[in-house]
Amino acid sequence: MFRPLGQRCMLRSVKAAIISIGTELTSGLTVDTNSAWLALKLAEIGWDVGMHMTLPDDQTAIADAVRLAAAQSDAVLVNGGLGPTADDLTRDAIADAVGQPLRRDPELMQQIERHFQHMGRPMPDSNMRQAEVPESGSGIENTCGTAPGIRVASSGAMIYAIPGVPREMKVMFKLSVLPELAATDQTTRTVVRTIRCYGAGEAEMAEQVADLMTPGREPIVGITAKHAIISFRVIAKSAAAADADVAEIRRRLGPLVFGEEETQLQDAVGQMLLEHKVTVSVAESCTGGMLGTCLTDVPGSSAYFLGGVITYAYDAKTDLLGVPRDLMMRDGAVSGEVAGMMAAACRERFGTDLAVSVTGVAGPGGGTEEKPVGLVWFGLASSDGVSTHKRLIGTHLTRWEVRDRACKVALHLLRRHLLGNSR
Amino acid sequence: MFRPLGQRCMLRSVKAAIISIGTELTSGLTVDTNSAWLALKLAEIGWDVGMHMTLPDDQTAIADAVRLAAAQSDAVLVNGGLGPTADDLTRDAIADAVGQPLRRDPELMQQIERHFQHMGRPMPDSNMRQAEVPESGSGIENTCGTAPGIRVASSGAMIYAIPGVPREMKVMFKLSVLPELAATDQTTRTVVRTIRCYGAGEAEMAEQVADLMTPGREPIVGITAKHAIISFRVIAKSAAAADADVAEIRRRLGPLVFGEEETQLQDAVGQMLLEHKVTVSVAESCTGGMLGTCLTDVPGSSAYFLGGVITYAYDAKTDLLGVPRDLMMRDGAVSGEVAGMMAAACRERFGTDLAVSVTGVAGPGGGTEEKPVGLVWFGLASSDGVSTHKRLIGTHLTRWEVRDRACKVALHLLRRHLLGNSR
Repeated sequence: MFRPLGQRCMLRSVKAAIISIGTELTSGLTVDTNSAWLALKLAEIGWDVGMHMTLPDDQTAIADAVRLAAAQSDAVLVNGGLGPTADDLTRDAIADAVGQPLRRDPELMQQIERHFQHMGRPMPDSNMRQAEVPESGSGIENTCGTAPGIRVASSGAMIYAIPGVPREMKVMFKLSVLPELAATDQTTRTVVRTIRCYGAGEAEMAEQVADLMTPGREPIVGITAKHAIISFRVIAKSAAAADADVAEIRRRLGPLVFGEEETQLQDAVGQMLLEHKVTVSVAESCTGGMLGTCLTDVPGSSAYFLGGVITYAYDAKTDLLGVPRDLMMRDGAVSGEVAGMMAAACRERFGTDLAVSVTGVAGPGGGTEEKPVGLVWFGLASSDGVSTHKRLIGTHLTRWEVRDRACKVALHLLRRHLLGNSR
Repeated sequence: MFRPLGQRCMLRSVKAAIISIGTELTSGLTVDTNSAWLALKLAEIGWDVGMHMTLPDDQTAIADAVRLAAAQSDAVLVNGGLGPTADDLTRDAIADAVGQPLRRDPELMQQIERHFQHMGRPMPDSNMRQAEVPESGSGIENTCGTAPGIRVASSGAMIYAIPGVPREMKVMFKLSVLPELAATDQTTRTVVRTIRCYGAGEAEMAEQVADLMTPGREPIVGITAKHAIISFRVIAKSAAAADADVAEIRRRLGPLVFGEEETQLQDAVGQMLLEHKVTVSVAESCTGGMLGTCLTDVPGSSAYFLGGVITYAYDAKTDLLGVPRDLMMRDGAVSGEVAGMMAAACRERFGTDLAVSVTGVAGPGGGTEEKPVGLVWFGLASSDGVSTHKRLIGTHLTRWEVRDRACKVALHLLRRHLLGNSR
């Protein structure tokens, strides 16, 4: 790194640098997740990332960083600072770095105008800045936003500028940048696979594959936990080696594995509901509609999800699901009895094969000695009858976390039920 | 940035650089959250962060980065690479960067030995490496791990090396590094304020405060857009200066501003519902419970949110809300007529002052020429009667985004209604 311009660092066949732009990043107000996402995508096509840099919205700082990175790397990926406003300085900084003036690209101007027509909104003049690219550079179409990307060559490196908004960044990178970089000839390609699990703790799952995770071993097997979903990542030099590890991890963890790559619990459950031709409805109290949101998050979920009720107030539980008011006045709404009634009535009301109910204490207030924040009761109604399940979802969790975990438990109950039926 | 060694970048009184070490970071396997945490802590004591850099476990790369950062900054915070293993190279790299040999610090050797005695474990010889510091440097005790930190001065900057493990890093930073940096005399402390807006595009809002966003102006005013919420950030040298800009932005944007700092639309709406003592219920189709989730995301929302129905299937709309089946068979479920009926029936069913309904095409499938993906109809029922509202929520959006935007439109309709009532 940081060798004089001209010289190249050739540790690997091809080397990239990632530069993230934004004072909200350097100030710590926002955590940069783009760099990690880009680095993983680059690894998949055999590109090694030599450094990440994060700079504030400061034209000189960005220009210096781009110049430096271009001297060290075969490709520089700059993300952020392409917006229409005065503090979006990436365009001007790249022009500085490559020593060229900016020109307005007619095609980009049309693309931006089309985008606004499409949205039926008038285009502010400031958006025309987004059609500017360095003299020898070209634009990259933004298929899901107004900010086009930039492509320009300098000191032997290709410089790409892409949006900072993760969704726009990811789409543009996959459509326009990745194919160009993948075309570069390389000595190594890395295969990255992800196995997604739910139903046990991170340490517990890690123990079952500890030998595969020995430092220095090939393939590299890593584990991460996010919102109670445990992901194993296999980084291998060949698809065959990756497949072997994925198969072994699946073998050892069995039903704890619900999918691979980006699969969510609701995707796995939805797939099973489809295969079993089973319909479902939900009755929610503390989750307030979040379980229905998860289930309908899956395209085509209307094939198995018919609907639900959000019975937040006592009256709603009584009027829509016939839960006796005096029962709740006596024992509260967080009990197995109430959860069971909710599920049974919901199943009847929507005429579904299955119905799930959730009632609990989401917090932060409302907890008691005997019913603390995080206590959640679940009901599962099927042709076999109604089962109720109690969970104390970790303490010290935020309101959102309690609700999110409760939805995952509910989805897990559905999955376990369907796994049982399928055996 | 990146000026020749010796010269200093004095944009602000005191300037720090953050360097994170680890191939797991540059490869994207782990997202670096330490940098953001450190930057926020530094801002609180008036330190401005000029750049973050992330380097792999490569001694030359780390040494070059430290040398460069030390030339640009008053303090350099290196985190990671202090472990006992062969790929922990931060100690050696810092020695390179400051041009000094490493020496074993007797005190650190005792601390490390004590730590292992404490854990009742024999100390591997390799851990003795962790007692090494550059000749003119000193160690920083690690009160919750074996890896001590390092403190050494070079080219006018203080260089600190702290562990990469977040828990150990945070404790050591707070106990030993923060007090030293806070003691540095400073001309400024930074005040950061955020103003949150909804109801117009980023460029449109930016134009209304363009003069405040001129590069180089003090305070710094930045704008970011995330999921249709526009945030203005004011970074000022004094609370008074920040207050003045916040007041001016609020004056110019009027009702587009719904809150400050972390406030969400549902917080603002919930506050108004509380103040007006107004209750609400929801009838959701395409959002599948997401609107209920938003409203109940607010602690204490049971004071105004009574419940809702997720009428995803036609039958559910007919059975729970009395929407005539033949009407939907003829015109489909995405229309003003259906939205209006849903809201009116929902209000009656839950006996609430207000009821909101959402029915639309979330996609990715199911769109037609006349009813494309992103078309959503809303109904708002109140004592004044029922109003219906049509929105074409941007094209090219994901299913999640269409649903998220639809919820925001619904919350905005509630807010506008309550603003009207409050005038």
